[in-house]
Order: sequence, then structure tokens, then C-alpha cells
Amino acid sequence: MPAFERHVFVCHNARAAGAPRPSCTADGTSALHTRLKQLTNEAGLGAKVRINKSGCLDQCEHGPTVVVYPDAVWYGNVQAEDAEAIVAEHLVGGRPVERLRIAETCLNAASCPHRGSL
Amino acid sequence: MPAFERHVFVCHNARAAGAPRPSCTADGTSALHTRLKQLTNEAGLGAKVRINKSGCLDQCEHGPTVVVYPDAVWYGNVQAEDAEAIVAEHLVGGRPVERLRIAETCLNAASCPHRGSL
Repeated sequence: MPAFERHVFVCHNARAAGAPRPSCTADGTSALHTRLKQLTNEAGLGAKVRINKSGCLDQCEHGPTVVVYPDAVWYGNVQAEDAEAIVAEHLVGGRPVERLRIAETCLNAASCPHRGSL
Repeated sequence: MPAFERHVFVCHNARAAGAPRPSCTADGTSALHTRLKQLTNEAGLGAKVRINKSGCLDQCEHGPTVVVYPDAVWYGNVQAEDAEAIVAEHLVGGRPVERLRIAETCLNAASCPHRGSL
């Protein structure tokens, strides 16, 4: 098999309490990750799509954050219950879940309504 | 700024001693990651290219493993001293470093000369 059809990175970053930027997980574990992995396997995509843990994806104010490559589709504020839509619509159906996407004006923005002005 | 021009994931996985598959790092730290980050910043690409920590990329027998998206270029057995070539040739120059690429026949292969037969 060649490269993964899709490679999904789920931020697992957990900062110490009081850190200036928020964290995507409280303790480095992610029910979202577990659910994405389970549903991907159930959909028969286990060998083609990898659900991967990642360190900080640098979109902290929009977390929990997920990025799907090679599409380069970014999702923000993703909860475990959103896993079904991501797997069914995007990973199986090929259509990104628009309601979960981080706005273009927020992605990698030094300032935005969520991040504030730096 | 929109999505990263390139997003580089460096496997930081560290298994317990005696695990059946090898690990990309001994202790979850990576001099390769540090060097890639330093050189990317020095090349003025700090805002366009993210050097990211990742969990297991599932190419353990070819590690330390790096994958560059959206190109989906996979590098194997990457040492800290390879960071210069990756940054200069690929991240700056746009040409993957062929000598570091994981062979197509090895990528995601259930068995290969490195992984053996499963």
C-alpha cells in the first residue's frame, strides 16, 4: 500500500494550568481520538486512513483541533460526538464537514475574534 | 495566513524496552525535531512551515520517521544531521530529498525487507 489515503492528526497537547494559551486536551488523552479510530476501523478504512496523535498544531484558541491531510482541511472545537460526521462525511464520503472547519480568517492568524489581538 | 505551506510531522514515539516494534525516539525527545525547527526558523519559514511533534506514524521499522504534508513525502531513518538537507532541499527548494525517502514498496507494507514477514 502506498501513502495513507488520508492522515488525520488529532492534537493531544495538554499545557499546565494557567498557561497563556488553551490546551486541546486536559491530560493528553482524547476521547475524540479514540472515537475517530473506532469509527474509521468500523468503516473498513483502518488500512487506508490513519488517525494519529499529534503535538500542538498551533491553533490553540480553536481547539480541540484536527487536521486532515493531504486535503489540508482544518477542524476546530471538535468534540468526541463530532467524530461520526468526520468519518461518515469526510473520510468515507470525501466531503469535508463545513460546520466544523476553522474559518480561513482564523487559521494561523496572529489575531482573530477567538485569539484576540497579540 | 491560510494553511501551512508545509506541515512536517516528526515521530516522537517511545515504546517500553522489549516492545515488538522499534521506537523513533528513546525517550520522547528528538534532536532531529529541534534541529528541523531551528533551521526552518533560520530559513525564514517559521510562519509558513510547521515542524510538529507526532505520535506513532506506523512506519516503525523505518524510523526515525518524518512525513511532510501536503506533499505526502515520507522520510525514514532520519537523523538530526539530515535536517539540513530536508530544510534546504525540500522545505526551501521544493525538491524532496530522494536518498531519505521510504521506498514505495516499504511504505505501509505489512511486510518488507525491513519489517520482515508478519
